Amino acid sequence: MAMMLEVTAYPKPGNVDRCHDYPSTHFEHFLASAILAGPVLRRAQEGREPVGKLFREAISATNIHTGGNTHFGAFLLLIPLVIGGDIEGAKKVVSATTIEDALDFYDAFGLTKVRMLESDPLDVRNPEAKRIIREKGLTLHAIMEHSAARDMVAREWVNGFALTRKGAELLKLHGSGRKAIVATFLDMLASEPDTFVIKEHGKYIAMEVMSLAQEAKAGRISLEMLDQRLVSKGINPGSLADILIASIYVALGEGWEWEF
Amino acid sequence: MAMMLEVTAYPKPGNVDRCHDYPSTHFEHFLASAILAGPVLRRAQEGREPVGKLFREAISATNIHTGGNTHFGAFLLLIPLVIGGDIEGAKKVVSATTIEDALDFYDAFGLTKVRMLESDPLDVRNPEAKRIIREKGLTLHAIMEHSAARDMVAREWVNGFALTRKGAELLKLHGSGRKAIVATFLDMLASEPDTFVIKEHGKYIAMEVMSLAQEAKAGRISLEMLDQRLVSKGINPGSLADILIASIYVALGEGWEWEF
Repeated sequence: MAMMLEVTAYPKPGNVDRCHDYPSTHFEHFLASAILAGPVLRRAQEGREPVGKLFREAISATNIHTGGNTHFGAFLLLIPLVIGGDIEGAKKVVSATTIEDALDFYDAFGLTKVRMLESDPLDVRNPEAKRIIREKGLTLHAIMEHSAARDMVAREWVNGFALTRKGAELLKLHGSGRKAIVATFLDMLASEPDTFVIKEHGKYIAMEVMSLAQEAKAGRISLEMLDQRLVSKGINPGSLADILIASIYVALGEGWEWEF
Repeated sequence: MAMMLEVTAYPKPGNVDRCHDYPSTHFEHFLASAILAGPVLRRAQEGREPVGKLFREAISATNIHTGGNTHFGAFLLLIPLVIGGDIEGAKKVVSATTIEDALDFYDAFGLTKVRMLESDPLDVRNPEAKRIIREKGLTLHAIMEHSAARDMVAREWVNGFALTRKGAELLKLHGSGRKAIVATFLDMLASEPDTFVIKEHGKYIAMEVMSLAQEAKAGRISLEMLDQRLVSKGINPGSLADILIASIYVALGEGWEWEF
C-alpha cells in the first residue's frame, strides 16, 4: 500500500507518478512491483525469516519486468520495518543482521543494475566483494555503515531511521492522502540532497534541486515547473522516494489516513 | 495485475483511470482493492476453496475503504477464472457451484451498496432472498442465470465467458500494454451496451454510449472528447471495465505482454 500510494501521488517532481513515465520505466512497473512484492512482505510481517533472505526474494520477485529496479532502496527500508513492525522494531532488526544477510544482499544486488561507485571494494561488480565480506565478518549493518556517507537509504539503517521518522511526522502534519504525500516529498526535497541524484549528476546538481524545491515551497515557482525542470534534465530524486515509501508505511501504521 | 493494468490504462472513457477520479471514488481506491485482494486471489489459485466463500472474502478484504465497490463484478469473474486457471476451467467451476456459494454471494452483496432492481425477489435487500434460495435450492450459477438478461457480468457465467474471451482476443490483436487495453475497451464499448449504464441511466443512454464509441473508433470524435461527454453526464461503463479485467487476466495467462 505504501509503495502504491507513493508512486500514485502527483505531481512528484522528477519522479514517475500518476502523470509521468520515464522512457523505459513506466508507472505500471512501479505498481507491478508493489503487487509482486505482496507475498514476500507478508512473510516479512510474520517475522520468522532473516532480512537478507527476504530482501533478496523481494528483488527476485519484482525484477521480472523490464522496468529496472523500481524499489531496491524501498525494500531495504521496508523489509526491516515490516519485520520489526515499526521503527523501534526495525532498529533491533538491523542491528541484529548477520554475515548471511550481507551475502544475501549481495546476491540481490547481483540480480539488478543498481549502481555503486566503481572504486568501492565492496561494489557488487567486484567478484572479490563476497570473499571480503566473509573474511572481514561484515554484517549487513556493517555494509550499510560503510555506505551511509554517500547513500541516504543506507544511512537510515545507522541513524535509527531518522529521515523515515521525519517523513512520517510531515505526512501527519500535512493532513491525509495524496496532497500530504506531495507536500512531504517537497519538504524532503527542499531539505535533503538526494544521494541518488548525487551519484547520477554530482553534488552541485543535487544542491540545485534542493534550491529549486525551496523556491517551489516558497511559491516562487510552481510544482509543475519544478517537475519540468527535473524531468527535462533526467533528474529523478529516487532515494528520497524510497525513504518516502518507508515514511508512508510508518505513518499508516500509526493511523495516518491515506484516503482523502 | 489485471486489476492494476485495467485501472491504470488511459484514456478509458467514462471510467476511473490514471488521469481521472470520481468525486468519492479515487484511482487509489481501485489500486488499494487490487493490492488488498492479493491474498484471497492467491488462495483461489490453490483451488481448494469454494467460489462463494472466496468471493465473499474478496469483497470483505477490499471494502475497508470508503471508495465503494470498486471490483464487485470483476471478482465475480476473476474468482472462478483464478480457481479454474483459464476459461475452460472457470466454466467447470461455475457449473459446479452450490447453494452455499449462492448464500455466500448474498452475504458478500450485503457488505456492499451494489444496486439491483428493487422489484427483484432475489434482490439482496429483500430479507426473504436467502430463504427463497434455500427453499428453491438455487445454486450461484442459477442466480447468475436469473440475472443474465440484465447483467452482462452474470451473463459471462452462463455463456462460457464469451465476452471475456472476445476481450482477450482483442487485446492480443491490439498489441501489448496500455494501448491495447484502451483499444480493446473502445471496441467493447462500441459493440456492447453496458448493463451498469442501463441500470443507472436507462437503455437509451447505453445505446448512445455505443454510438459515441463507434464515432470515436471511426476517428470522428477523439477519445478525450468521448471521455468528457461520458464524465460530464456521470456515465461510467463499469460492467465493461469488469469484463475487461477478466479479459486481461485470461490474456496474461496466454502470454499477452503487459509491458510496452
